Amino acid sequence: MPIMTPIRYKPIGVIQSPFKTRAGMPIQPAGAEGVRGSIKIDPDYLEGLKDLEGFSHLILIYHFHLSADFKLSVVPFLDDTPRGVFATRAPNRPNPIGLSVVKLNRIEDDTLYIENVDIIDGTPLLDIKPYVPAFDVFKYTKIGWLTAKEKAVPKKKSDNRFK
Amino acid sequence: MPIMTPIRYKPIGVIQSPFKTRAGMPIQPAGAEGVRGSIKIDPDYLEGLKDLEGFSHLILIYHFHLSADFKLSVVPFLDDTPRGVFATRAPNRPNPIGLSVVKLNRIEDDTLYIENVDIIDGTPLLDIKPYVPAFDVFKYTKIGWLTAKEKAVPKKKSDNRFK
Repeated sequence: MPIMTPIRYKPIGVIQSPFKTRAGMPIQPAGAEGVRGSIKIDPDYLEGLKDLEGFSHLILIYHFHLSADFKLSVVPFLDDTPRGVFATRAPNRPNPIGLSVVKLNRIEDDTLYIENVDIIDGTPLLDIKPYVPAFDVFKYTKIGWLTAKEKAVPKKKSDNRFK
Repeated sequence: MPIMTPIRYKPIGVIQSPFKTRAGMPIQPAGAEGVRGSIKIDPDYLEGLKDLEGFSHLILIYHFHLSADFKLSVVPFLDDTPRGVFATRAPNRPNPIGLSVVKLNRIEDDTLYIENVDIIDGTPLLDIKPYVPAFDVFKYTKIGWLTAKEKAVPKKKSDNRFK
Protein backbone atom coordinates (compact mmCIF):
# COMPACT_ATOMS: atom_id res chain seq x y z
CA MET A 1 0.00 0.00 0.00
CA PRO A 2 1.59 3.34 -0.99
CA ILE A 3 2.10 6.46 1.11
CA MET A 4 1.57 4.86 4.50
CA THR A 5 4.31 6.89 6.13
CA PRO A 6 3.41 8.84 9.26
CA ILE A 7 1.90 12.29 8.85
CA ARG A 8 2.79 15.19 11.16
CA TYR A 9 0.49 18.07 11.98
CA LYS A 10 1.06 21.09 14.20
CA PRO A 11 -1.90 22.60 16.10
CA ILE A 12 -3.02 26.01 14.85
CA GLY A 13 -4.65 26.90 18.16
CA VAL A 14 -6.34 25.67 21.33
CA ILE A 15 -10.04 25.28 22.09
CA GLN A 16 -11.29 26.60 25.44
CA SER A 17 -14.55 25.33 26.92
CA PRO A 18 -16.37 24.86 30.23
CA PHE A 19 -15.75 21.09 30.10
CA LYS A 20 -12.78 20.09 32.23
CA THR A 21 -13.37 16.33 32.53
CA ARG A 22 -14.42 13.71 30.01
CA ALA A 23 -17.48 12.51 31.90
CA GLY A 24 -20.71 14.52 31.82
CA MET A 25 -20.08 16.22 28.50
CA PRO A 26 -22.51 16.59 25.62
CA ILE A 27 -21.73 13.92 23.02
CA GLN A 28 -22.32 16.13 19.97
CA PRO A 29 -22.87 19.86 19.27
CA ALA A 30 -26.62 19.01 19.09
CA GLY A 31 -26.42 18.32 22.84
CA ALA A 32 -24.40 21.47 23.55
CA GLU A 33 -26.83 24.13 22.42
CA GLY A 34 -25.90 27.48 23.94
CA VAL A 35 -22.62 26.21 25.44
CA ARG A 36 -20.00 28.87 24.79
CA GLY A 37 -16.31 28.49 24.30
CA SER A 38 -13.48 30.14 22.45
CA ILE A 39 -10.48 29.36 20.31
CA LYS A 40 -7.07 30.99 20.68
CA ILE A 41 -5.30 30.95 17.34
CA ASP A 42 -1.50 30.80 17.14
CA PRO A 43 -0.32 34.28 16.02
CA ASP A 44 1.47 32.69 13.03
CA TYR A 45 -1.90 31.87 11.43
CA LEU A 46 -3.99 34.99 12.09
CA GLU A 47 -3.93 36.09 8.44
CA GLY A 48 -5.81 32.90 7.53
CA LEU A 49 -8.87 34.06 9.54
CA LYS A 50 -9.73 36.82 7.05
CA ASP A 51 -13.31 36.54 5.66
CA LEU A 52 -14.22 33.89 8.24
CA GLU A 53 -16.57 36.16 10.19
CA GLY A 54 -19.10 36.06 7.32
CA PHE A 55 -19.84 32.40 8.14
CA SER A 56 -22.27 31.48 10.90
CA HIS A 57 -21.01 27.89 11.31
CA LEU A 58 -17.50 26.46 11.30
CA ILE A 59 -16.23 22.91 10.93
CA LEU A 60 -13.55 22.35 13.57
CA ILE A 61 -11.08 19.51 13.08
CA TYR A 62 -9.18 18.76 16.25
CA HIS A 63 -7.05 16.22 18.07
CA PHE A 64 -8.65 14.10 20.83
CA HIS A 65 -5.56 14.66 22.99
CA LEU A 66 -6.92 12.65 25.94
CA SER A 67 -7.43 9.50 23.84
CA ALA A 68 -4.43 7.47 24.93
CA ASP A 69 -5.23 4.43 22.82
CA PHE A 70 -7.85 3.05 20.48
CA LYS A 71 -10.09 0.01 20.20
CA LEU A 72 -11.49 -1.26 16.91
CA SER A 73 -14.69 -2.34 18.63
CA VAL A 74 -16.39 0.12 21.01
CA VAL A 75 -19.67 0.45 22.89
CA PRO A 76 -20.81 3.97 21.89
CA PHE A 77 -22.60 6.34 24.30
CA LEU A 78 -25.86 5.81 22.40
CA ASP A 79 -25.82 2.02 22.48
CA ASP A 80 -25.09 -1.06 24.58
CA THR A 81 -23.77 -3.21 21.74
CA PRO A 82 -20.13 -3.18 20.55
CA ARG A 83 -19.77 -1.50 17.15
CA GLY A 84 -16.89 -1.11 14.72
CA VAL A 85 -15.16 2.15 15.71
CA PHE A 86 -15.47 3.62 12.19
CA ALA A 87 -19.27 3.18 12.45
CA THR A 88 -19.22 5.43 15.56
CA ARG A 89 -18.12 8.93 16.52
CA ALA A 90 -16.25 7.65 19.60
CA PRO A 91 -13.05 9.57 20.51
CA ASN A 92 -10.70 6.57 20.81
CA ARG A 93 -9.96 6.06 17.11
CA PRO A 94 -6.81 4.83 15.32
CA ASN A 95 -6.19 8.49 14.43
CA PRO A 96 -8.00 10.39 17.21
CA ILE A 97 -9.39 13.17 15.02
CA GLY A 98 -12.51 15.01 16.19
CA LEU A 99 -15.01 16.90 14.07
CA SER A 100 -17.58 19.40 15.36
CA VAL A 101 -19.67 22.05 13.65
CA VAL A 102 -19.99 25.06 15.96
CA LYS A 103 -21.62 28.48 15.70
CA LEU A 104 -19.26 31.41 15.24
CA ASN A 105 -20.40 34.43 17.26
CA ARG A 106 -17.50 36.82 16.61
CA ILE A 107 -13.76 37.14 16.16
CA GLU A 108 -11.58 39.51 18.20
CA ASP A 109 -7.88 39.54 17.32
CA ASP A 110 -6.64 35.98 17.95
CA THR A 111 -9.85 34.74 19.62
CA LEU A 112 -12.88 33.12 18.01
CA TYR A 113 -15.97 33.15 20.21
CA ILE A 114 -18.00 30.02 19.50
CA GLU A 115 -21.23 28.35 20.63
CA ASN A 116 -22.63 24.78 20.75
CA VAL A 117 -19.26 23.52 21.97
CA ASP A 118 -19.03 19.78 22.75
CA ILE A 119 -15.24 19.81 23.08
CA ILE A 120 -13.08 19.47 26.18
CA ASP A 121 -11.02 22.43 27.41
CA GLY A 122 -7.45 22.51 26.11
CA THR A 123 -8.09 20.55 22.91
CA PRO A 124 -5.52 21.26 20.15
CA LEU A 125 -7.15 22.57 16.97
CA LEU A 126 -5.86 21.31 13.61
CA ASP A 127 -8.05 23.04 11.04
CA ILE A 128 -11.04 25.33 10.53
CA LYS A 129 -13.25 25.10 7.46
CA PRO A 130 -16.37 27.11 6.66
CA TYR A 131 -19.59 25.07 6.93
CA VAL A 132 -21.42 25.34 3.60
CA PRO A 133 -24.79 23.57 3.23
CA ALA A 134 -24.25 23.11 -0.54
CA PHE A 135 -21.10 21.10 0.28
CA ASP A 136 -22.03 19.52 3.57
CA VAL A 137 -25.71 18.58 3.60
CA PHE A 138 -26.85 15.24 2.18
CA LYS A 139 -30.38 13.96 2.08
CA TYR A 140 -31.90 10.48 1.93
CA THR A 141 -29.30 9.01 4.23
CA LYS A 142 -29.33 5.65 6.00
CA ILE A 143 -27.81 5.69 9.49
CA GLY A 144 -27.49 2.01 10.36
CA TRP A 145 -27.38 1.18 14.09
CA LEU A 146 -28.09 4.83 14.96
CA THR A 147 -31.59 4.66 13.49
CA ALA A 148 -34.07 5.71 16.20
CA LYS A 149 -31.14 6.35 18.58
CA GLU A 150 -30.13 9.74 17.18
CA LYS A 151 -33.09 11.41 18.90
CA ALA A 152 -31.44 10.76 22.27
CA VAL A 153 -28.40 12.89 21.38
CA PRO A 154 -29.48 16.28 22.78
CA LYS A 155 -29.91 14.87 26.32
CA LYS A 156 -27.19 12.21 26.37
CA LYS A 157 -24.02 12.93 28.34
CA SER A 158 -20.66 11.24 28.15
CA ASP A 159 -19.25 9.00 30.87
CA ASN A 160 -15.80 7.60 31.54
CA ARG A 161 -15.87 4.71 29.07
CA PHE A 162 -13.25 6.18 26.68
CA LYS A 163 -9.79 6.71 28.13
CA MET B 1 -0.23 28.13 24.57
CA PRO B 2 -0.45 24.53 25.86
CA ILE B 3 -0.18 21.28 23.88
CA MET B 4 1.28 22.73 20.71
CA THR B 5 3.61 19.77 20.17
CA PRO B 6 3.45 18.02 16.80
CA ILE B 7 0.83 15.31 16.32
CA ARG B 8 1.54 12.15 14.36
CA TYR B 9 -1.05 10.14 12.46
CA LYS B 10 -0.70 6.95 10.44
CA PRO B 11 -2.96 6.40 7.41
CA ILE B 12 -5.57 3.67 7.83
CA GLY B 13 -5.91 3.13 4.08
CA VAL B 14 -5.64 4.63 0.61
CA ILE B 15 -8.36 6.20 -1.55
CA GLN B 16 -8.49 5.14 -5.20
CA SER B 17 -10.23 7.30 -7.79
CA PRO B 18 -10.28 8.12 -11.51
CA PHE B 19 -8.52 11.46 -10.84
CA LYS B 20 -4.80 11.23 -11.52
CA THR B 21 -3.92 14.93 -11.75
CA ARG B 22 -4.94 17.95 -9.71
CA ALA B 23 -6.37 19.97 -12.58
CA GLY B 24 -9.84 19.18 -13.96
CA MET B 25 -11.20 17.62 -10.78
CA PRO B 26 -14.56 18.32 -9.19
CA ILE B 27 -14.04 20.74 -6.30
CA GLN B 28 -16.54 19.10 -3.93
CA PRO B 29 -18.55 15.84 -3.80
CA ALA B 30 -21.51 17.91 -5.08
CA GLY B 31 -19.61 18.22 -8.37
CA ALA B 32 -18.65 14.54 -8.44
CA GLU B 33 -22.08 12.94 -8.59
CA GLY B 34 -21.82 9.37 -9.85
CA VAL B 35 -17.99 9.33 -9.78
CA ARG B 36 -16.94 6.00 -8.33
CA GLY B 37 -13.88 5.15 -6.35
CA SER B 38 -12.77 2.78 -3.64
CA ILE B 39 -10.83 2.66 -0.41
CA LYS B 40 -8.34 -0.07 0.50
CA ILE B 41 -8.18 -0.38 4.27
CA ASP B 42 -4.99 -1.51 6.00
CA PRO B 43 -5.62 -5.10 7.24
CA ASP B 44 -4.78 -3.99 10.81
CA TYR B 45 -8.01 -1.96 10.96
CA LEU B 46 -10.58 -4.21 9.28
CA GLU B 47 -12.38 -5.01 12.56
CA GLY B 48 -13.25 -1.29 12.85
CA LEU B 49 -15.43 -1.49 9.69
CA LYS B 50 -18.10 -3.62 11.41
CA ASP B 51 -21.61 -2.04 11.25
CA LEU B 52 -20.44 0.57 8.72
CA GLU B 53 -22.41 -0.91 5.83
CA GLY B 54 -25.69 0.26 7.42
CA PHE B 55 -24.74 3.87 6.65
CA SER B 56 -25.36 5.36 3.21
CA HIS B 57 -22.92 8.27 3.61
CA LEU B 58 -19.46 8.42 5.16
CA ILE B 59 -17.32 11.34 6.28
CA LEU B 60 -13.79 10.76 4.99
CA ILE B 61 -10.94 12.63 6.65
CA TYR B 62 -7.78 12.44 4.59
CA HIS B 63 -4.37 13.97 3.99
CA PHE B 64 -3.89 16.29 0.98
CA HIS B 65 -0.59 14.55 0.22
CA LEU B 66 0.15 16.69 -2.86
CA SER B 67 -0.07 19.97 -0.92
CA ALA B 68 3.60 20.78 -0.53
CA ASP B 69 3.10 24.06 1.27
CA PHE B 70 0.39 26.43 2.45
CA LYS B 71 -0.58 30.05 2.03
CA LEU B 72 -2.68 31.97 4.55
CA SER B 73 -4.34 33.94 1.76
CA VAL B 74 -5.65 32.03 -1.27
CA VAL B 75 -7.78 32.68 -4.33
CA PRO B 76 -10.34 29.85 -4.16
CA PHE B 77 -11.69 28.05 -7.25
CA LEU B 78 -15.06 29.79 -6.80
CA ASP B 79 -13.69 33.32 -6.57
CA ASP B 80 -11.19 35.80 -7.96
CA THR B 81 -10.49 37.61 -4.67
CA PRO B 82 -7.91 36.43 -2.11
CA ARG B 83 -9.55 34.97 1.00
CA GLY B 84 -8.22 33.80 4.36
CA VAL B 85 -7.44 30.09 3.91
CA PHE B 86 -9.63 29.09 6.88
CA ALA B 87 -12.61 30.76 5.13
CA THR B 88 -12.06 28.41 2.15
CA ARG B 89 -11.92 24.68 1.47
CA ALA B 90 -8.65 25.01 -0.49
CA PRO B 91 -6.23 22.06 -0.15
CA ASN B 92 -3.08 24.04 0.73
CA ARG B 93 -3.79 24.56 4.43
CA PRO B 94 -1.43 24.78 7.44
CA ASN B 95 -2.50 21.21 8.23
CA PRO B 96 -3.55 19.83 4.83
CA ILE B 97 -6.56 17.85 6.04
CA GLY B 98 -9.35 17.09 3.58
CA LEU B 99 -12.98 16.33 4.35
CA SER B 100 -15.50 14.77 1.95
CA VAL B 101 -18.85 13.11 2.47
CA VAL B 102 -19.21 10.23 0.00
CA LYS B 103 -21.85 7.60 -0.68
CA LEU B 104 -21.03 4.08 0.48
CA ASN B 105 -22.21 1.47 -2.03
CA ARG B 106 -20.83 -1.68 -0.46
CA ILE B 107 -17.94 -3.22 1.46
CA GLU B 108 -16.06 -6.33 0.31
CA ASP B 109 -13.29 -7.56 2.60
CA ASP B 110 -10.77 -4.70 2.79
CA THR B 111 -12.40 -2.57 0.08
CA LEU B 112 -15.08 0.11 0.42
CA TYR B 113 -16.81 0.97 -2.84
CA ILE B 114 -17.76 4.64 -2.77
CA GLU B 115 -19.47 7.22 -4.99
CA ASN B 116 -19.41 11.03 -5.41
CA VAL B 117 -15.64 10.98 -5.05
CA ASP B 118 -13.86 14.36 -5.41
CA ILE B 119 -10.52 13.01 -4.16
CA ILE B 120 -7.31 12.36 -6.09
CA ASP B 121 -6.08 8.80 -6.60
CA GLY B 122 -3.59 7.61 -3.97
CA THR B 123 -4.77 9.90 -1.16
CA PRO B 124 -3.94 8.58 2.35
CA LEU B 125 -7.06 8.13 4.48
CA LEU B 126 -6.91 9.14 8.15
CA ASP B 127 -10.39 8.43 9.48
CA ILE B 128 -13.90 7.33 8.57
CA LYS B 129 -16.95 8.55 10.48
CA PRO B 130 -20.60 7.77 9.80
CA TYR B 131 -22.54 10.75 8.39
CA VAL B 132 -25.53 11.37 10.68
CA PRO B 133 -27.94 14.20 9.77
CA ALA B 134 -28.85 14.73 13.45
CA PHE B 135 -25.15 15.48 14.13
CA ASP B 136 -24.07 17.03 10.86
CA VAL B 137 -26.88 19.16 9.42
CA PHE B 138 -27.30 22.78 10.50
CA LYS B 139 -29.91 25.19 9.25
CA TYR B 140 -30.06 28.97 9.02
CA THR B 141 -26.43 29.31 8.10
CA LYS B 142 -24.60 32.34 6.72
CA ILE B 143 -21.91 31.53 4.16
CA GLY B 144 -20.03 34.81 3.78
CA TRP B 145 -18.15 35.27 0.49
CA LEU B 146 -19.63 32.02 -0.86
CA THR B 147 -23.16 33.48 -0.92
CA ALA B 148 -24.53 33.13 -4.47
CA LYS B 149 -21.30 31.36 -5.51
CA GLU B 150 -22.13 27.93 -4.06
CA LYS B 151 -24.50 27.25 -6.95
CA ALA B 152 -21.51 27.05 -9.30
CA VAL B 153 -20.02 24.09 -7.42
CA PRO B 154 -21.52 21.18 -9.39
CA LYS B 155 -19.97 22.39 -12.67
CA LYS B 156 -16.74 23.96 -11.43
CA LYS B 157 -13.48 22.05 -12.00
CA SER B 158 -10.14 22.51 -10.32
CA ASP B 159 -7.10 23.95 -12.06
CA ASN B 160 -3.41 24.04 -11.18
CA ARG B 161 -3.48 26.95 -8.73
CA PHE B 162 -2.72 24.86 -5.63
CA LYS B 163 0.63 23.05 -5.55
